[in-house]
Amino acid sequence: MVTMRDVADRAGVSIATVSFLLNDTKPVTEATRARIEQAMAELGYSRNMVARALASRRTRIIAMAYPALDHRFGFSAAEFFTSAATAARKQDYHLVLWPVGNDGAELHELVGESLVDGVVLMEVQLDDPRVAILQRTRTPFAMIGRTTELEGLSHVDIDFDKTVADAVAYLYGLGHRNLVLVAGDLADPRFHNHGPYVRTEAAYRRISAEYGLQTIVVVSADNTQSGQEAAARLMRDHPDTTAVLVINEYAGLGVASGLNRLGYDVPGEVSVLPLLMAPETAALSNPELTIMRAPGPELGQLGTEALIRQLEGAAALPPQLIPAKLQPGSTTAPPRPT
Amino acid sequence: MVTMRDVADRAGVSIATVSFLLNDTKPVTEATRARIEQAMAELGYSRNMVARALASRRTRIIAMAYPALDHRFGFSAAEFFTSAATAARKQDYHLVLWPVGNDGAELHELVGESLVDGVVLMEVQLDDPRVAILQRTRTPFAMIGRTTELEGLSHVDIDFDKTVADAVAYLYGLGHRNLVLVAGDLADPRFHNHGPYVRTEAAYRRISAEYGLQTIVVVSADNTQSGQEAAARLMRDHPDTTAVLVINEYAGLGVASGLNRLGYDVPGEVSVLPLLMAPETAALSNPELTIMRAPGPELGQLGTEALIRQLEGAAALPPQLIPAKLQPGSTTAPPRPT
Repeated sequence: MVTMRDVADRAGVSIATVSFLLNDTKPVTEATRARIEQAMAELGYSRNMVARALASRRTRIIAMAYPALDHRFGFSAAEFFTSAATAARKQDYHLVLWPVGNDGAELHELVGESLVDGVVLMEVQLDDPRVAILQRTRTPFAMIGRTTELEGLSHVDIDFDKTVADAVAYLYGLGHRNLVLVAGDLADPRFHNHGPYVRTEAAYRRISAEYGLQTIVVVSADNTQSGQEAAARLMRDHPDTTAVLVINEYAGLGVASGLNRLGYDVPGEVSVLPLLMAPETAALSNPELTIMRAPGPELGQLGTEALIRQLEGAAALPPQLIPAKLQPGSTTAPPRPT
Repeated sequence: MVTMRDVADRAGVSIATVSFLLNDTKPVTEATRARIEQAMAELGYSRNMVARALASRRTRIIAMAYPALDHRFGFSAAEFFTSAATAARKQDYHLVLWPVGNDGAELHELVGESLVDGVVLMEVQLDDPRVAILQRTRTPFAMIGRTTELEGLSHVDIDFDKTVADAVAYLYGLGHRNLVLVAGDLADPRFHNHGPYVRTEAAYRRISAEYGLQTIVVVSADNTQSGQEAAARLMRDHPDTTAVLVINEYAGLGVASGLNRLGYDVPGEVSVLPLLMAPETAALSNPELTIMRAPGPELGQLGTEALIRQLEGAAALPPQLIPAKLQPGSTTAPPRPT
């Protein structure tokens, strides 16, 4: 098998010079070019060897796969993305966004082009077809999120258990005993297997039972109107409710404004506490929402770090779970006297 | 100069088969591979020819360049992006998002990799360094936005003149004579040259003068808090104000909530009309905002179409300007009686 060194030796130039020519990374003189091309022809240095060399070439580009046509790209997603892009840049990588679906078809086409060194997966499903594709194509990847089967997979995620536990403890401490969770819609085929929905709801069911509270869950899509409708539904069916936890970011805005429109005083009559929200979203609400602040900045940075460590052959980043943290606002207070 | 046809003829295979091998697009048998490689070696078919062939290879990937670390990626930007991605997909292209800065440095590195067939530029500055880089690297591109010098450049954009004219005509028709524009901050170095800010403010100054109105402009960054501060400032300095136009999407939310917090009845005392807003953003406001609805879905689609036509060698898409359209909400009404 003819190597680049053989070509360089025969042409009487350095390997670097051959590489400059092959990769067009630096100009070489016409005379040098002619010598190298002649050596390649004489040695039968063929396209496939070049193709292999090219294929092993690093682009220093990594992609964040985000199903932007199915999942709302709101302030929380923007926080993950911009913190990941900033982390990549600090290590001299470029991060690009691939708006590919969760089913993996487009991801497959894109990784087939060998255009990126690796992929960060967002909006991970419990059984995510994208994982098998990345494994099969030997594409390095890290997940911001978790599949059910995690053996050997590089990942960081929200600590949903601790987030929900801290939120319930806070409301319980204020005196609330009649809580409702506004959850994500697992009947929507785009989300039936969506890790954050499944894990948050499961944590809530477990923790509310531990507190001896009635477990009431209503469903909302991730938009303002659906949140408003959920607020109307839950106050109709559960008029004793004194505090509402909300999974979806924009549903949280809708629950607060929906309660206002129905004539409820927030937080005088009902407290509202979104479980995963960016501060910029909270600021859109009037009054500003008390939130469990989603750890987007930390996880975007860590997910990128986990991938780059693989690419650089550094020690693996241990899996990390980070909870959302309480950020006080004006939508939580002790319950109304009964 | 040896061509792929020469190699095919000598190996006794079709040009397509040579191409399959060179581009790894389809498996060929070992015997065929050996014949082609031998022909390549005998003819001295060299790497540079392959490199040229590879360079001309289409990836069917196009990038949207959006300076996401400098410009807020809100609902309007998401509309441009998702409509562009949808339009690309319909024509069997992939759209990816490059969060590269307006200064062009990162864009230059990325286009140097020849990873995409072309680029759609977003958040165009009047004198945008990215244009020269794309021209110099012969990268096909289309702009959603406009530089000052447009000769021969493929572009679609918002019709700022008509948007402002329609908005002022609407408020004037309701009876308003004391308008204020909350403009973008041209003193911010990231935006000193930002087409939408410059064009909208210029249109407003011209049109308000045409109506014989006093031209009052205050400045706000694109976030809720800055909009609230602008509302306080403008009511302090111009207490006769009966209607406020706002350029920035999230400043618009802030102006409305800021007026509410200051005790003003919207629209009873002051009307609020954002000039470029997505309906999803308008729905976050309580009451829901009357808006000039930004033409994101149309322009994302058209900008992608303009680029793909270049890539396909089809007739150029003529430049198009599309105005935002009035979408009635609950924040505009006739002015309070004086």
